[in-house]
Amino acid sequence: MDEFEIIRRYFERAVSDDSIRVGIGDDGAVLRPDPGRDLITVIDTLVSGVHFPPSLSPADIGYRSVAVNLSDIAAMAGRPRWMVLALTLSDSDPAWLAGFSSGLFAAAQEFDLALVGGDTTSGQETAISIQIIGDVEIDQALVRSGANSGDAIYVTGTPGDASAGLAVLQSGTPRNSDVDYLVKRFARPNARVDLGQAIAEHASAAIDLSDGLFTDIEKLLRASAVSGLIELSEVPLSAQLIKLMDEDDALRFALGGGDDYELCFTSQAGAEVFQEIADQHDVPITCIGQVNESADSGDALLCTRNGNEYEYHHDGYRHFH
Amino acid sequence: MDEFEIIRRYFERAVSDDSIRVGIGDDGAVLRPDPGRDLITVIDTLVSGVHFPPSLSPADIGYRSVAVNLSDIAAMAGRPRWMVLALTLSDSDPAWLAGFSSGLFAAAQEFDLALVGGDTTSGQETAISIQIIGDVEIDQALVRSGANSGDAIYVTGTPGDASAGLAVLQSGTPRNSDVDYLVKRFARPNARVDLGQAIAEHASAAIDLSDGLFTDIEKLLRASAVSGLIELSEVPLSAQLIKLMDEDDALRFALGGGDDYELCFTSQAGAEVFQEIADQHDVPITCIGQVNESADSGDALLCTRNGNEYEYHHDGYRHFH
Repeated sequence: MDEFEIIRRYFERAVSDDSIRVGIGDDGAVLRPDPGRDLITVIDTLVSGVHFPPSLSPADIGYRSVAVNLSDIAAMAGRPRWMVLALTLSDSDPAWLAGFSSGLFAAAQEFDLALVGGDTTSGQETAISIQIIGDVEIDQALVRSGANSGDAIYVTGTPGDASAGLAVLQSGTPRNSDVDYLVKRFARPNARVDLGQAIAEHASAAIDLSDGLFTDIEKLLRASAVSGLIELSEVPLSAQLIKLMDEDDALRFALGGGDDYELCFTSQAGAEVFQEIADQHDVPITCIGQVNESADSGDALLCTRNGNEYEYHHDGYRHFH
Repeated sequence: MDEFEIIRRYFERAVSDDSIRVGIGDDGAVLRPDPGRDLITVIDTLVSGVHFPPSLSPADIGYRSVAVNLSDIAAMAGRPRWMVLALTLSDSDPAWLAGFSSGLFAAAQEFDLALVGGDTTSGQETAISIQIIGDVEIDQALVRSGANSGDAIYVTGTPGDASAGLAVLQSGTPRNSDVDYLVKRFARPNARVDLGQAIAEHASAAIDLSDGLFTDIEKLLRASAVSGLIELSEVPLSAQLIKLMDEDDALRFALGGGDDYELCFTSQAGAEVFQEIADQHDVPITCIGQVNESADSGDALLCTRNGNEYEYHHDGYRHFH
């Protein structure tokens, strides 16, 4: 099966969208942006064996590849529009391709995102680069650098679940409904696109959680040239995670695990504003700390646990994502 | 060296461009398109050992990765604007990264293209996906599907040089200035961006040459639901190519070699129009055939050589690019 056949069979789907003037099959796609909006462009690569275990189902790999990119669009309060796919395949197994494309299109359909082009190539290992273009009202993109001293720090969902899901997937932990829940949080992350748009008018800065709550909050604080403090007893942990391990371990997954694709944001607005948004979207939004003036020391982020200073040692391993 | 350090050291360069509202370092880039223009988006992946020999210099790899994408923008008569880079590295060798980024930025600067974001990840093999967003006046993108019966078929430059350059690079042919010329055509393809814009108002359809003249003309003809005929004695061959091999072999490289990144286009305009453009841009533009009605047989493209029917056997190998 050559690249043209792969594209024709698995990736060309009729789309009826006036914004797509030329879709798959030409040198490039021609797209008509809505007037008066900024564009948001994001790209993320998933390499088999690095970003997901090869045993993950092809449909989950397809879904996840789209979702992790949508999460970046969500963190900027964007609306997803168009996607291109650069697919490097170690072989062209029809069953894998059928599964992968079904997962990819499931995510695309859920978020009203059109696949408009791509490139298929062979390599020793399977790697998926997806690039998404979204848009947002002019000057309304939510960035990392807007946090101010006095803002509260909020997180959506329950961090730690996805990385615990990956760990149980890799360790072969016996499955039950709690374990399945955690695995699904890794395999099919919920990109918080609607939520990103809903919080935008109240939030001063936002980031999506890909490398772990601690590291990602640190990045937001550094980008904003401020410091912050989080209280670990406020970090929301899922019932499923708590059932599987003690609280110390659960916190380790939450702080350092990564792969959550939840949003972390800062705001001056009161908690009740976000309670209402949380209820509307059926996703918990929890205040876990606050933003302070720029620190004199090198630490942008400090932790307390039940009010006591808590030195968080993240293991020195930075995801080479 | 982790991904943040790699980005900071090799890929973050100050840009002063009002269209870039948020550049590298946030969840995504925020871009402001010019009003009243369509966008063009293209993506191409280069895998080490598949699309270039690992021995190619890092600077050439960087340049080439950008140029092959610019070529797609050129074929649609677009103006390059913004680029994102998804880089998968088998190791993080500082010398390689320094060379690669210098070549990448050399191409970017030459074509007024800004790097606005990306993703760096580790893998077993080095792979480079570049996505470029360009723009074009509304409805003025040049597509593959516009060729009409009676149009002439034109090609820019001298096809075959780049694939011959790759062959001598891989075979270790002794170097001289002719050989160096051919190798450079592979290592640093000239994206025909200005030329694409110059021919746009006269051309009915265009494609860039990546898979070989024969295959790419076939694609254009099929997209336009027409057939075509090319006269092989009209295919322009470079003096350097002719010096290295006999005409039969040179034609084989020209027809089947690929990697030219020249433009092939169709037009009703007279040859003198393109002679003037060729002179202005110092690039040969040669009429090599004509477009006919849709063929009854399966062959979209026929060849003659000095007026005699010539059955071109391309080797059945389709680049799995």
